[in-house]
Amino acid sequence: MRTSAITAAILIIGNEILSGRTQDTNVCYIAKNLSKLGIELLEVRVVPDDEGKIIEAVNTLRQTYTYVFTTGGIGATHDDITAASIAKAFGVNLVINPKAMAILKDYYQDDLNETRQRMALLPGGCDLIENPVSKAPAFRVGNVFCLAGMPSVMRGMFDFVMTQLETADPFYQTIITCELTEGIIGKKLGEIQQQYLEVNIGSYPFYQLSHVGVSLVIRGQNKPLIGQATAAVLKMIESFGGTAKVEEEIP
Amino acid sequence: MRTSAITAAILIIGNEILSGRTQDTNVCYIAKNLSKLGIELLEVRVVPDDEGKIIEAVNTLRQTYTYVFTTGGIGATHDDITAASIAKAFGVNLVINPKAMAILKDYYQDDLNETRQRMALLPGGCDLIENPVSKAPAFRVGNVFCLAGMPSVMRGMFDFVMTQLETADPFYQTIITCELTEGIIGKKLGEIQQQYLEVNIGSYPFYQLSHVGVSLVIRGQNKPLIGQATAAVLKMIESFGGTAKVEEEIP
Repeated sequence: MRTSAITAAILIIGNEILSGRTQDTNVCYIAKNLSKLGIELLEVRVVPDDEGKIIEAVNTLRQTYTYVFTTGGIGATHDDITAASIAKAFGVNLVINPKAMAILKDYYQDDLNETRQRMALLPGGCDLIENPVSKAPAFRVGNVFCLAGMPSVMRGMFDFVMTQLETADPFYQTIITCELTEGIIGKKLGEIQQQYLEVNIGSYPFYQLSHVGVSLVIRGQNKPLIGQATAAVLKMIESFGGTAKVEEEIP
Repeated sequence: MRTSAITAAILIIGNEILSGRTQDTNVCYIAKNLSKLGIELLEVRVVPDDEGKIIEAVNTLRQTYTYVFTTGGIGATHDDITAASIAKAFGVNLVINPKAMAILKDYYQDDLNETRQRMALLPGGCDLIENPVSKAPAFRVGNVFCLAGMPSVMRGMFDFVMTQLETADPFYQTIITCELTEGIIGKKLGEIQQQYLEVNIGSYPFYQLSHVGVSLVIRGQNKPLIGQATAAVLKMIESFGGTAKVEEEIP
């Protein structure tokens, strides 16, 4: 597999995802935005609110990929253990961050009690990530960006994070839909993939009411090559008597 | 963290999830059903359609958890590499499975071409998993169950898989919602968690229009203890002048 020069992983910290109570939507949001920045998301992990599991995952991922984005576990309650776990993963102390404390003081004024002050306890030497929604900041240590789990808050934070990342050519994709099945086009499609190794061709069958067919996704960072591979796939579909619908996604 | 005697992981094999094109819904479905069976989902990984990444992940997960469920990559095209990758992970050959071939022959009759026959190439010694939707069977090797990625097909397969698993006491949960914030209840809530270490108490704030508050999830396999922890949380909410709404989820 040919991969981008800039890579990423997401680490979801959340019992609520593993219990099935909450449907994650953060991966999809982050993934689409990374595509626009030319950053290739190569792994996602979901782990429980468990210090050992978080430390193990974050240390593996940060040594493997350019960037790691964690979501979840940065609130004010006992189950919010991301900051403490990240501090241990990096071997630094958990300390009161003066800038974070100032933000909390400004927001909560006289209501800044002991529980809320907990949100200023962050890994030593971290950089803050602005929270435009509920103020308590997120943080970055090295190549690890720790964001909120709540989608509306995470998205606000990620908008800021996007300005901090190294970028490359965006990922383009064309999506070709036709009512031929994989069994018909599979062999030829594999040959086209072999011809264009720098693009990725995915095949996703669908059954919808009386419609049976396949969506073919041609994706990569080399736009002219995607154009060539798309033309080859369209020609192949025509040769089997199919009719193709093409969508182009340009970030 | 106290964990169940029977544990599980999910491995999603899918470029389409990592690119952000497809919103995964299989984790939520599998997670809810495992909860009913008393099986604790402790990890999810998403990896690309890449043999090395699949082998590494499946070998780690199958040695760590009771069961592993993979989704995706079991169709007829070049990007369907789950069977070959699982065979390598277990050190067995990829062979034509006579039972799978018989199912495909029965379904496709004279249209069983070379591409479709590829779906009978499975790891040696595997057991088949019935596919009530599109016939081509899924498979199991040891504690690893390899399922389709398409949700409608995956669900049909998982209904069968559920009959094959060792089970335990189901996970119960109560969900308590109130319009108090984490900053108010956080300290007391942490004390209640310390009193009831056998249940898991999660705290999830919400901001919806003018409503600000928190959902508290009390979850575990010991139903009487969940009742006690729920009573303690309700008393705590009352002590802060809050009004609680309680939902009980009984599998």
